[in-house]
Amino acid sequence: MQSPCLAIVAGAGDLPIQIVEHCKNNNIDFKIIHFEGVDLHWLKQLPVINAKFEKPNALFASLNDCGCNQVVFAGAMKRPKLNPLKFDAKFLKIASKLLPALKKGDDTTLKIIAEIFEKEGFEIIATDKILKNIFVPEGVFTKKNPSENDLIDVMRGFEILNIISKADIGQACVIAQGLCLGIETIQGSDALIKFAGQSKKNYLNDESDGKGVFIKSPKLNQDKRIDVPTVGVETIRTIAEAGLSGLAIKADCVQMIDKNACIDTANQLGIFITSVSSDKVL
Amino acid sequence: MQSPCLAIVAGAGDLPIQIVEHCKNNNIDFKIIHFEGVDLHWLKQLPVINAKFEKPNALFASLNDCGCNQVVFAGAMKRPKLNPLKFDAKFLKIASKLLPALKKGDDTTLKIIAEIFEKEGFEIIATDKILKNIFVPEGVFTKKNPSENDLIDVMRGFEILNIISKADIGQACVIAQGLCLGIETIQGSDALIKFAGQSKKNYLNDESDGKGVFIKSPKLNQDKRIDVPTVGVETIRTIAEAGLSGLAIKADCVQMIDKNACIDTANQLGIFITSVSSDKVL
Repeated sequence: MQSPCLAIVAGAGDLPIQIVEHCKNNNIDFKIIHFEGVDLHWLKQLPVINAKFEKPNALFASLNDCGCNQVVFAGAMKRPKLNPLKFDAKFLKIASKLLPALKKGDDTTLKIIAEIFEKEGFEIIATDKILKNIFVPEGVFTKKNPSENDLIDVMRGFEILNIISKADIGQACVIAQGLCLGIETIQGSDALIKFAGQSKKNYLNDESDGKGVFIKSPKLNQDKRIDVPTVGVETIRTIAEAGLSGLAIKADCVQMIDKNACIDTANQLGIFITSVSSDKVL
Repeated sequence: MQSPCLAIVAGAGDLPIQIVEHCKNNNIDFKIIHFEGVDLHWLKQLPVINAKFEKPNALFASLNDCGCNQVVFAGAMKRPKLNPLKFDAKFLKIASKLLPALKKGDDTTLKIIAEIFEKEGFEIIATDKILKNIFVPEGVFTKKNPSENDLIDVMRGFEILNIISKADIGQACVIAQGLCLGIETIQGSDALIKFAGQSKKNYLNDESDGKGVFIKSPKLNQDKRIDVPTVGVETIRTIAEAGLSGLAIKADCVQMIDKNACIDTANQLGIFITSVSSDKVL
């Protein structure tokens, strides 16, 4: 039986590209949903549905025409700049719920967008149902291990992320020698790591006490289908350039794009990657 | 009766200078405790006790010699770089409690330092007991008023600060059009405001929906004697330079250094200052 067509809502980063590769390799029929304003330079000859945030009616009609009834959200997307004059009838129907949500945190917005798709009869598929092994199990994956001081920073980081997850702002922080050098906000992980790297020299004693760790963990009760914390080779490079010791993620719930390349890069740059069981950080 | 000598633990900013002025004007005997490594360019001919973090014994002896039994903590202080070879007997006695606290948040560290002073028989005086009216009551203090969109950002900011206060990281954030553009961490408010100002252009729609607000509030259950959120003229200038709309603080618990100069500066630069009752933000 032919598998149903998969619609890939494509945002920034390599995740949608990996899903496209997977679909090609496994003969899965797919369409890429390309929202206006999202920069996707890799589209080439791929099957694309062009969409506007203001016109969900047209998008749902196109998806139904293609027989796409499954949708995967892949890659970060900025809050769209909306032109109210372009709203179609469907948008106007959901506007009273959607527009206030856009002024809340990311989660609130994404949950409502997911609800809208579901109400239209689409099934939302989590990325890890498509890309097996994208989540990282517990362990240290690099030649370098976190030091005892690094591990204290890791635990402080997870403690902070657990608390702030209720505020729906970000999923990452940088801790060095017990000091919080930054919390992820809308600018994302790379901006956070650079900010922490530039300012840390003013606050750290002897770096043998810990050069700083970038810690990433999903928000509590996060919907795994629509906003999953993600790291990749670029994250690893940025961590090393900022002069941090390594990366710590919560096991089995942070996705790592191209895991082998991440580990190789970390080994070349002399930083660690550790994945900590949620039993130990909650 | 002669008032007892007041010891001013002086950190960065104008707050210790204001307390010195107050003491001079009111004939209050005082000593400035100048910890090694803290940059106090304004000391001139003032009465100073030079102190090292590693040698509390010497400090307590000097304070007792001067008859100082009241201490005020004024101005931000970085976590000290400690040389364990210099620890005196008193430090060694408290080290098992103090050193682990230095790896937690600011509050934990400060609470333990306050406890140490209290155990030695010193009374810790809150700055607002000395500088009356340093806290700002409810109201809007500028010609410019926050817009309806600014007020939504203000409320979102206080909501976030209430949640993250349990993580003991910072006391401020920047919100624009519902998006969190930054959370205060160890680098302080000015670094936060600059970071938010530089990155906000990538995320904001039409600026008439709100240019962003800097929001400051004490952590919940914060000890008002030792770590009080503070704003001053420099904060106002930085907010304006970053292109934000204004400043919102929680009423009656954020200290404003040189209030009239702050309000004049805000009026000149076209930003608002609003102080919101805690009834409305909790």
